[in-house]
Formats: sequence, C-alpha cells, structure tokens
Amino acid sequence: MAELLYGAPVAEMIRRETEKIISGLSFAPRMAILRMSEDASQLAYEQAVKKYCAGLGIEAESRFVPIGALRQTVEDINRQSSVHGCMILCPLPEGEDSAALDALAPEKDIDGASALSLGRLFTGRGEFFAPCTAEACLELIDYYKIELAGARVCVIGRSLAVGKPLAAMLERRNATVTICSRSTRELAAVCRQADILIPAAGAPGLVDTGFTCPGQVIIDVGISSVGGKTLGDVDMESAAPVAGAVSPVPGGVGSVTTAVLAKHTALAAWKEVHL
Amino acid sequence: MAELLYGAPVAEMIRRETEKIISGLSFAPRMAILRMSEDASQLAYEQAVKKYCAGLGIEAESRFVPIGALRQTVEDINRQSSVHGCMILCPLPEGEDSAALDALAPEKDIDGASALSLGRLFTGRGEFFAPCTAEACLELIDYYKIELAGARVCVIGRSLAVGKPLAAMLERRNATVTICSRSTRELAAVCRQADILIPAAGAPGLVDTGFTCPGQVIIDVGISSVGGKTLGDVDMESAAPVAGAVSPVPGGVGSVTTAVLAKHTALAAWKEVHL
Repeated sequence: MAELLYGAPVAEMIRRETEKIISGLSFAPRMAILRMSEDASQLAYEQAVKKYCAGLGIEAESRFVPIGALRQTVEDINRQSSVHGCMILCPLPEGEDSAALDALAPEKDIDGASALSLGRLFTGRGEFFAPCTAEACLELIDYYKIELAGARVCVIGRSLAVGKPLAAMLERRNATVTICSRSTRELAAVCRQADILIPAAGAPGLVDTGFTCPGQVIIDVGISSVGGKTLGDVDMESAAPVAGAVSPVPGGVGSVTTAVLAKHTALAAWKEVHL
Repeated sequence: MAELLYGAPVAEMIRRETEKIISGLSFAPRMAILRMSEDASQLAYEQAVKKYCAGLGIEAESRFVPIGALRQTVEDINRQSSVHGCMILCPLPEGEDSAALDALAPEKDIDGASALSLGRLFTGRGEFFAPCTAEACLELIDYYKIELAGARVCVIGRSLAVGKPLAAMLERRNATVTICSRSTRELAAVCRQADILIPAAGAPGLVDTGFTCPGQVIIDVGISSVGGKTLGDVDMESAAPVAGAVSPVPGGVGSVTTAVLAKHTALAAWKEVHL
C-alpha cells in the first residue's frame, strides 16, 4: 500500500519560514486578490487564503473586478506601494483579455502568472516568483526527499499554472520530463513508465492502477468538486495498492500552495525593503 | 534506408515569403549582429547571415561588443529606429552578464532570446519572435507534412535556443514531448520510443541505431565542427538504415535557420510600419 505524502508538515515548515521573514519587517505585508467571477472554487480559495494570511499577520484584501477592467486595476496596483503582492484568480471569465495578466509588475506577481515572470522562470534570469502550485509540488517532493536527478517524471496537463512551469523547474533539477495532455496516445502506458507521476488534469479518478507501477511516486495536483466532495485525479482504491507513495486530495498539494502564496507575499514585502 | 529531409526546399519557401514581405516595404530592413567573441563558428554564422541577407536586400551589420558593454549596446539599439532587428551571438563570453540579453526590446528580438520573448512564447500571449533554430525545426516538420498531434517527440538538449522553446512549440501543436539531457537514464531506450527524435546536443554521432526505430523521423539539430568537417548528432551509417527519415547535417536545419532569421528581420521592419 502506498505511503501517503501529507501536505501538512510541508506547509508547517513553510509557515515557519514565512513567520521568520515577517518578524524582520516593521510593517504588515499586504496582498491584493483580484477576482472576476462568483465561481465557487475561486470563492473558496479566496476565503482560505484570507484566513491563512490573517493568522500570519498578512493583510489580504480581495477586490471584485468587472470584465474589461483588469488591466487598469493591475496598473493601479503596480503604482500602490502599500500593496506588496497581487494574485489574480483564474480562469478569467470569457471576454476578459488574458494579456492583462502580463501588466502585473514581476515584483508583485506572487503567483507567477505574467509572461515576464514565466520567461524569467524559463531562462533562470532575473527575479521572479514561480506559480504557487508548481512550487508547492517541488516543496512536497523535496520535503519527502524524493530524488529528482535522473528521475523520469510525467506531468499530465500543460497549464501555465502547473504543468508548463513545473516541467521547467523539474528539468532544471535534472529530471527527464514528459508533458502529457488529452492528445497523448496510450496515456496510461506513458505514465506507467514514470518514476514520478504528477497528474494536474482536474479529471477525478483518471489515474488508476493502469497508470502506476511499484515504487512510483504520485503527486496529485488535480482538484475537483464532485457532489460536495473534493476529489483528486487519482483513483486511490485502484492506484494506491500498487504505487509507492501518493499525496492525498484533500490534504496534499493544496495546503502547501496556500503556504507558498503567503511566503511569496512576505518575500515581496521583504524584497521591497532590501533589494 | 531513411528518407533524407533536406533543408533547401524549406529555406527556398521561406525565402520567397521574405521577398514578398520586403517588396511591400519602402525601405531596406536592417539587422544588427552583436558578437562578443572570435569563436570560429560564430564568425562563420555571422558571414553566412550577412551573405544571405545581402541577397535579399537586408542590411546586416555586425558589431563587436567588449565584455561588460552588452547591456548598453542593446539599449542603444532599442532606441535606434533605423535598426529593425538584433541578434546577439551566443554563447556569451565568461564575464558578460547574460541578463543583458533581456534588455532587448521584444519587437527587435529576432532570435527570441530575451526572458520576455520566451515568456510570450511560453504563454502564447503578445507579439514575439521564436528562437530561429526552434522555428526552423518546426518549418522542416511542417514542410514534410510530419504529423505532430498525438506524436511522441523526444528532444535531446534543454537549451534556451532550441530544446526548451521547441518543446513548448511542439506541445502547443498537441505533441507529447519529453526533454532529455545528459542526466537522462537509459537515453537510447527513451529516444527509441519517440515517433520524432530531435537531437540538439552538439554531440557528434551520439544518435546511433540504438536510439532509433523503424518509421522514426529524426530532425538533427546538432552542429559540431570536427577536423574541419561539419557533423550532426546523428551517426548516419548506424541510424539511417533503421530510421524512417533523417534531416542531414549539413544541408538540413541549419540552412532553414538563416532563412528564418532573415524573415524575422523583414517582419520586424514590416511590423514597425503596420502595427
């Protein structure tokens, strides 16, 4: 039976790092959350972030942005020195130009969403924050001392929030990375060859026993709400008896993501003073 | 025996597209080539680009840039409206800050080298030029009508000029891409599974019969100079009897790359007038 890779101790470690950063500041870090929809999962994430930040002394303030107003709002935030970090909840609604994400200054782009932040991540040059979920996966992998150098990693999903940046981060750590998608032929067979499988498809129960192999580590990034229950991409009953280790949903990557976001906000505040 | 995928007809097609763009301009496009070393392969590429551009009526002018002066030179070029495109020959010498590449304005970055150009390529948002060698591979693949959707592609090498951007471009076309490197375990076995193999390692003769399989398409991006001979990454004697198709070196991707660079310069000039 697979070992469970819980997010809680990883999130706790990051929380302590964040407290340390904040203790060196003479002011409270401030985060702006921009939301453009009433989507339940976005609202839930916003609430979770606010609650988590409050416990750390980070002021997280959310603003509802009407369609067409994102670029102007972002440009206003770039000019507000009292706001240290800004997260824009995605996906954006239809009709909003996603290029507005690129207007956010990299030093405030705490969820690594702009083209410049992602370009810096890609090249390894300049200051940037990585997308929080991608960084959370890496934090989990490192906490549980899972070897990346030489490992074959398979990522399912090529989003800008997870798949694409995570692949770049794993390559830098000398993993051999394959990005899969709905276009991948024989997806299960491709995934079965991986030492580390990272499903980020948002397809509940996609990963069954046919996707895994003994010793494989599965980092489940999929989060879906089905009939009031939160489900990951892994079908635990089918996959867990075979795999070596699985991060659960809920209780895995998700909790680490919020901790990373708060840490980025504290770091953004710290950098404003020290860089 | 593998079919040979020659670059010449692909380059010729791109050349005609470039001529058409230039015929709509009332002035000659101008390219600046910045070189920081006396490296023989950089000098050879510079000469080839100048000769090719001269034949098209593009003014290509090279400047030698001393160590430490790259950022200032790039900023000067950003301000010179008479220069439409700029290529900086890489690798840069030790001691030069590679972040200077990021100072180049995206509209002049004809070889897609800056963090912002690469971020735009990565996100698919905004105007950018792709790195010419990566685009040349895709042009070759498309010219010979090689199917990408659903194909398993293996790229050897994770450079910013080829491997990384090419992987992103192939993913957008619904290929399933694996990036390999010197850290990859069982490299030959991984490559043998690919429908399309793109070695870009600069390791002459690396790809032998053990890397290939019947029907596989090999796009050889490796270019090395050994004893006065130009060699690719493919050991033709060993791999060609097995593979379905191979682009030769010389005579493959290289000639297409120069054609793409000239086309980008013409497009940069065109965009300055029309966008």
